[in-house]
Parts: sequence; structure tokens; C-alpha cells
Amino acid sequence: MQHGVYAQSGGVTAVINASAAGVIEAWRSHHGVNLATNRLYAAENGILGILHEELIDIYQGSASDIASLRNTPGGAFGSCRYKLKDLNTGQLEYERLIEVFAAHQIGYFFYNGGNDSADTCLKVAQISGNLGYPIKAVHIPKTIDNDLVATDNCPGFGSVAKYIATSIREAGFDLASMCATSTKVFILEVMGRNAGWIAASAGIASDAAGAPPHIILFPELVFDEAKFLAKVAAVVKEYGYCIIAASEGIKNQHGDLLSKSSLVDAFGHAQLGGVASLLANLVANRLKLKCHYAIADYLQRSARHIASRIDIEQAYAVGAHGVNLALSGFNSVMSCVERVSTEPYAWKVGHADLTEVANKEKFMPRDFIDEEGFHITQKCRDYIEPLIQGEDYPTYHNGLPDYITFPRIKIAKKLAYFKI
Amino acid sequence: MQHGVYAQSGGVTAVINASAAGVIEAWRSHHGVNLATNRLYAAENGILGILHEELIDIYQGSASDIASLRNTPGGAFGSCRYKLKDLNTGQLEYERLIEVFAAHQIGYFFYNGGNDSADTCLKVAQISGNLGYPIKAVHIPKTIDNDLVATDNCPGFGSVAKYIATSIREAGFDLASMCATSTKVFILEVMGRNAGWIAASAGIASDAAGAPPHIILFPELVFDEAKFLAKVAAVVKEYGYCIIAASEGIKNQHGDLLSKSSLVDAFGHAQLGGVASLLANLVANRLKLKCHYAIADYLQRSARHIASRIDIEQAYAVGAHGVNLALSGFNSVMSCVERVSTEPYAWKVGHADLTEVANKEKFMPRDFIDEEGFHITQKCRDYIEPLIQGEDYPTYHNGLPDYITFPRIKIAKKLAYFKI
Repeated sequence: MQHGVYAQSGGVTAVINASAAGVIEAWRSHHGVNLATNRLYAAENGILGILHEELIDIYQGSASDIASLRNTPGGAFGSCRYKLKDLNTGQLEYERLIEVFAAHQIGYFFYNGGNDSADTCLKVAQISGNLGYPIKAVHIPKTIDNDLVATDNCPGFGSVAKYIATSIREAGFDLASMCATSTKVFILEVMGRNAGWIAASAGIASDAAGAPPHIILFPELVFDEAKFLAKVAAVVKEYGYCIIAASEGIKNQHGDLLSKSSLVDAFGHAQLGGVASLLANLVANRLKLKCHYAIADYLQRSARHIASRIDIEQAYAVGAHGVNLALSGFNSVMSCVERVSTEPYAWKVGHADLTEVANKEKFMPRDFIDEEGFHITQKCRDYIEPLIQGEDYPTYHNGLPDYITFPRIKIAKKLAYFKI
Repeated sequence: MQHGVYAQSGGVTAVINASAAGVIEAWRSHHGVNLATNRLYAAENGILGILHEELIDIYQGSASDIASLRNTPGGAFGSCRYKLKDLNTGQLEYERLIEVFAAHQIGYFFYNGGNDSADTCLKVAQISGNLGYPIKAVHIPKTIDNDLVATDNCPGFGSVAKYIATSIREAGFDLASMCATSTKVFILEVMGRNAGWIAASAGIASDAAGAPPHIILFPELVFDEAKFLAKVAAVVKEYGYCIIAASEGIKNQHGDLLSKSSLVDAFGHAQLGGVASLLANLVANRLKLKCHYAIADYLQRSARHIASRIDIEQAYAVGAHGVNLALSGFNSVMSCVERVSTEPYAWKVGHADLTEVANKEKFMPRDFIDEEGFHITQKCRDYIEPLIQGEDYPTYHNGLPDYITFPRIKIAKKLAYFKI
């Protein structure tokens, strides 16, 4: 059982491939010339690649492809939104996992994802105890939402924070120029179903009194229409314009999403979008102010061109540490980032038990949001600011970032087709 | 009449301040130590700053502020959407302009804007002949829309093109990872009321068969719903996902904007937005494919962090050349970019008569769009690709671009208030 398999799960980020690079290079440095007897595969499209026995032979990629992973957004091996059933109701799936692991002598499982994926990783880890197959399952944290518990922050978040803070600062310069005769209010809709970390990151751009953004709408607080409109009017009166960062997940006093659509994703979460247009209409109709809005959507989580250097370094490090943990005998743990100090910022890798992580969410503490509820506090700034430090530009070819498509060279299947 | 005034007009860009820097440094290099007797002012908020006698004393800004203009998005001196009336119906306005020019001994007028602003500049230029006040009025081209005639391309376009092509490439990597179990179609709504240059720039990202974007919707072509849906379905079938760049200005067979709202801006143009959500609903409801969309809105035109180096250089050069033209005695001209060769790309500055420019629009030639109508041709690629070459990163402070707010130190007014 000496081989390993790595897989990517859930919404991808600008730096998840940097974690892949960390896993791949740590595995190589452990096994040196024995890569043939200690192979590392990537399952295509997360856990589905194991169920379907679609295993990519990673070291068939060239050294240059492997090195370029660090600089390429998206999930190079394919990701998935698929949640394993419970051990009781989904026994066939677990038997299949063991069948594939055994057929390919896989003893190490590295799952790179968020809180739903941590649940999958935990279930795989439990195969070892409950079903007697010797697997070491290690979770590698990844989520732009920064809502995983037990890690100081999540790789993926620092880069989206840098993108959002940069973008809203830039839009602020635009509006400041135009507001005398044109647009007075600008809204940027950002991701974050339940946790307001991404919305909060916009606040980092506001480095002086009156500097945009002027209003942040957090999903943790109830959206109060009258209070919001009064604040917009007051900001426009004082500064001539108003820049707003709005989380897609803001809710009214009944707990209903402002933007609720009837569509749901594979995990049963409502598919959101449309908060910005709703707010823009509110501002235009009720305050009679010209309003524009942008929806960053996937651009925010794929913007490798403005990734945070510290985020890339942490993504790489938690990947590499995941390998160290598994090869040291750990099972059912998550590799994580521990903050050693904030001023100056220092961090190290660590680990947490997966039962403490799976299916939990970390929200913005109330004291990270100011009393009025429309901005971040210094405490929040102290937490986020270190995570957006440094640039790590991709190389450019012909004016555009030179990202790579990793060759998905599969190993031969040994088993019959498995219908999910 | 030895002093000069510079002003910014219309929608701002990531590089209009680079043109300002070109004007300011060329003026300084002409007048050397005589800046006190040959002063350069900036009118606050475009032509309104002249009507209101709000004149910023540019050289009161520090050398560092002036140097930083080149790297700061938005309009440092404020822009406006305001169109002068005709000489016949708006005589009071023209008399006021002359009054302000005369009071401050202004003999040079540099107007930095698009086609509507070229009309304003032309009208100011005509003061010289029709009303007998000796002014040299020179237009400096600026528009992300790239729709000015007589110049090979417009400063501001290269940077938005680089932003859009980069963003859609990045979103493509995201969807390619996720499409097996999640989003199949992604739509990026881009600016461009009537001209499809920005939409076309997305096409540069598609550097190989099947590389996203797969579909571009141009405002120059009639939007055919059935043909569009059939194409989306075919692309998803072939590649597993479909990336679309849609111009905000696409129209149906009756010539109606798909996204028409009842709001209009100061020039009487419909305020657009909403094409992406409309298309996304179409795809989701008719093809039953999970669809996401982003709306770049002002982010695209303020994204100085990923400006094109060639665009910055050209913006600076047309600003500097505008000063050369005026001081050489030219009136009623636009400074422009002339393409010397495409392969290798070479360009120089030139000029065109303003009567040839004002109120005209340059559309995508039909042979820049492929026969099917959903992508660009090699001819279009040859035209756009040189304009996105090179990076010119701003400096960063604390993880974010270090943009400056230029000090608006006004000179004393000499005249009574003028009501517009």
C-alpha cells in the first residue's frame, strides 16, 4: 500500500494548484528515486476519479508542467461537487473506494478542499478503522470563503481578498472622478454564502477616513433596508459618492436570502447571485441616485494574475505538510496554517483532527465588524492584512498569463465500471 | 494668452492619468523654468471646471504626485459627462468660456476624452475662429471603447482588453475544472454600447482550438436566440463547458437592446447592464445547464493593476504630443496613434482634424468577426494583440496598489459665479 492519490474538491481557487505542487514536490523529495515504487496519482474530478478509477499519472507531466502548477488557477486535475453518503446508507461507494485503493495499492489519500470536502476526507479516513483498509487520509485546506475552523486562515482566501480589495479601490478611483455628473453609487457583489470574510476583505482598501469602500454588507448581520439607504444617502452627502461591497449571502430579518433563486447545487446550497442588481434598483428608485454594479463571480476566485504571495506560499506549504503528516503515520487530520504572531506576521504549518473540521463553518466574529455594522474593525484588519501581502505574478506570453493545462495521462484501469 | 488648461472628460480609464502625465511633463519640458509665466492648470471635472472657474494649479502637486499619475487609475482631476450646446443655442456658455480663458490668460486647451468629448473640444476650438478668442484646442484621445475614428486605436482600450482577455482566460480554467459536476456555462458581460472592440478582446485569450472563450456576442451583429442556444449546446457537448463574452450592447432583430432600461445618462445614452443575467436565465431555462455570470462593469476600466504597458506608453505619448501640437500652433486637432507596422508592431504619434473625429464611431469591421458570428478572425487578432503587450505594474503598499489622490489646489477665482 505504498502509492498515494491526490484530489481536488469543491469550488476551485487561484492557488489550489500551488497546494498540488506542494504535495507533488514533497512526495518526490520523500521518495527520491523510488517514484516508480511509490507512485503519486491524481484522481480526476475529486473523489469521483477514485470511484471511476480515473487516475492521472502525475509524474508523466514534465518538470515544467509540474513547476507551472504553482502559477496556474483552477483545478488542474478537475474538481467535483460530490458528497459521499454515510457509511450506513452508502456502503457500496465505500466498498468501491476500497476496491480501487486495493487494486492500485494506494495507501495515502490527500484531499484538497473546503468544509464539505473535509467531510468526504473524514469518511475516507474512517475506512481505515471501520472497514479495516489501511489508508492514511489527510485533508489539505482550500477555500476562498475562509470558513474552515482549526486553521488560522484558508489558502485561497488571501488571493481573493487581494483581488477584491484591489478591485474596489480601483472602482473607488473611478467613481471619485465621475461622481460630480455621473454615477454616485457603485456596488461590488462578492462571494460568501454565510461567512463574510470576502466582503470584509474589501474593507482593507479603506486605509483612511472616507476612503472606499464606505459600506460593507455582511451575511452575518441582518440586512436592514432603511438603515442601509440612510447610510448610502449620508455617505453620498459627505463624500459625493458611495462604494459598497455586498456579500451574495445577505439575508433579511426572516433569515431569507435577498437573492434566493430556486436553483441549488449538489450540496443543496442555494445558487446565489443578483444581490447587486437588487441593491442597485433600491438605491436608484428610492434615493434617485445613479448606481452601477459589478458581479465578480468566478473572476474573484480565478484571478491568479493578482494572487497574494503569502497565500501562494501557504497553499504550497499546507500541501507539502500534508504529505509529511501522512508519511509520518497521521490519518484523519487536516494540514493547517497556525499564526505565530501578527506584528510582525509569522506563521507555521500544523495540523488538526478532521472531526473538529468537517461540516463546520467559521464566521466573522462580531468584534471584527464595527458597531454600526457597515465596516470592519482594526482587529479584523490586523487579521486579514497579513494575508494579502506580496505579489507573485505569473509569467506572460503574448500579453496574457501563460497558464498550463496539465496533461491528464491516465493509468490503465483494472476494474469494471462502477455506476454512481 | 500663454497659459494652458488640461481637462478630463467622459468615462475614465486605467490610463487617462498617464495622458495627463504626458501633457504635464511635455509642458514642463517646453517651458522649463518659465512655469510661472507659462502655467498649466487642470480644470476640475472637465469643461465644467472652466465654466465654474475651478482651476487646479498642477505644479503645486509634488514631483512624486505628478510621477504617480502615470500609475493611478480614474481621472485625477475629475471628469464629467457634459456636452456643450451648439454655438447658436448656447451662446452664454461660450461667452463664459471666453471670459474664464481671458481672465486667466489661457491660450491652450487640452481635452482628454472620447467622441462626445471630441465634440466639446471642437466647439472650443471654434471659439478661435467664430468668436475671435485666440485658443489652441487639442483633443487627446481616451476611451476604453476604442471607437474613435482617425486614430489606429484609443488609449484605454489596450488595458481593458488585457483585463478582459486575462479574466476570461482565468474563468476558463475555473470552469474547465468544475464542469464535470457543476457549472457548465459562464458568461462575462463586458462594456461596449455599439462597438464590439472590448468583446472582441476576449477572443485574444482563445489561442488554440477549443480554448475559451468559445462564444463572443458582438453589438454589431443581431442577436439570434435560437442560433446562440444551439451554439452553446454544441460547445458544451464538445468541450464539456462553454465560456461566453457578451457585449452589454447586443440587440435583437428589431434593433432593441436586450438589456434596455429606462435610465439614460447625460448624453441621452441608455444606461445598460443586465445582459448577462438575461442570457444566463436563457441558458439555464432552455438548455437546463448550470450557468454563472460575472459583470465586470467599472472594474474593467479601472484595473490599473493589469494595465497594458503599450497602452500606458501610448496614453502618455498622445498626451505629450498634444502639447507639441498646440505649442506648434495647431488648433482643432486630435493627437493620435498611427500604426507603422503590425509584424513587428511599431507605432508613432500623429494628428487628425477634429471635424473628422467628433461624434463619429468606429465599429468592428465585418471581416474582424468570423463567418458564424461568434468569434474573431486572425485579422482582428493581428490588430488587437499588439495593444495588450507588456505589463506595467503599479507599486504596492501593504499588499495593495499604492494609487495617489492628486492634491486639487485651486487658483483664486476672478469672476462671478456662473449658473449652468
